[in-house]
Amino acid sequence: MTKKKKTIAIDMDGVLADVETQFELWYERDYGLKIERSARLGVPESEGFPDKGAVRKFVYTPGFFRTIPLMPGAVEAVQQLMEHYEVYVVSAAMEFPQCLSEKREWLDEYFPFIDWRNIIFCGDKSVIDTDYMIDDHCKNLDFCKGKAIMFDAPHNSEKTHHVRVKSWAEVLMLMGRENLIEA
Amino acid sequence: MTKKKKTIAIDMDGVLADVETQFELWYERDYGLKIERSARLGVPESEGFPDKGAVRKFVYTPGFFRTIPLMPGAVEAVQQLMEHYEVYVVSAAMEFPQCLSEKREWLDEYFPFIDWRNIIFCGDKSVIDTDYMIDDHCKNLDFCKGKAIMFDAPHNSEKTHHVRVKSWAEVLMLMGRENLIEA
Repeated sequence: MTKKKKTIAIDMDGVLADVETQFELWYERDYGLKIERSARLGVPESEGFPDKGAVRKFVYTPGFFRTIPLMPGAVEAVQQLMEHYEVYVVSAAMEFPQCLSEKREWLDEYFPFIDWRNIIFCGDKSVIDTDYMIDDHCKNLDFCKGKAIMFDAPHNSEKTHHVRVKSWAEVLMLMGRENLIEA
Repeated sequence: MTKKKKTIAIDMDGVLADVETQFELWYERDYGLKIERSARLGVPESEGFPDKGAVRKFVYTPGFFRTIPLMPGAVEAVQQLMEHYEVYVVSAAMEFPQCLSEKREWLDEYFPFIDWRNIIFCGDKSVIDTDYMIDDHCKNLDFCKGKAIMFDAPHNSEKTHHVRVKSWAEVLMLMGRENLIEA
């Protein structure tokens, strides 16, 4: 009998999709200012730029979510994780309805190997039950039913109550260890 | 201290949205044949009509999901349930990507009082963890983590291993009783 794979919920923005870089690119394009990441440490996402309304304006702009750059190493890491875990993409997508189709198209472009059965677009994530959750927001990790893994982002730099990973390479190291322990 | 409300996952097609009536209406419109519901008892959804490809063609047609009639009594029942339960709409929407925005617009039209935080569009429902799940498909109910409640539909008429409700009025009676027991 094949042992049932453990499940991982993986967030999109800030985890698979490099939304911080997208914010910086769009801010520089629209305001002519390059805002360093180091200046946004510990600052909520929506307040990290001089024009405090910019982030909100961006996320409501058609095309924003469709064109977010891929997080470095994410594709290869997810492929690797799928060999040992049942991987679900779990993305908060309901607040901005126009992003539903954009996020789905983005996944089809970069992660065509993820089955539609394993994609979840939700509001809050409180009813998601997986063995692991990789996310950049405490609002999702604090109440998750499995092990929480915080993906490093400027806005979460001061949160210390979850295991932190700084890159997809670190995720692989951590999950390889977990897989060994669970085996 | 306020007691935390129990959670209910409620399906869309066949539960909030009267997809069987929509199939019948579209079939009659396109093929000139009225197919009685009694002729489809125990028959899988995709095989209930003389042209076996019709259902599949319909669900891929833009506008199909946007125009499904409301299930009788659903709005009032959900409003009532929300007074006692935390209600989540959990709909399988990933197989047909064009339906994402249509389903969201449909909910905004008929259930504008449901918060975006409580809407989940997914593939399979195996990682959804709620205290109750109201659905018309065994593929969702058989593995649900909470109490399964089967909403009556022609295609599920021969399944007898879940509690069956035939209408939203029956849901209210059942959940009222549950709420009393849990109180």
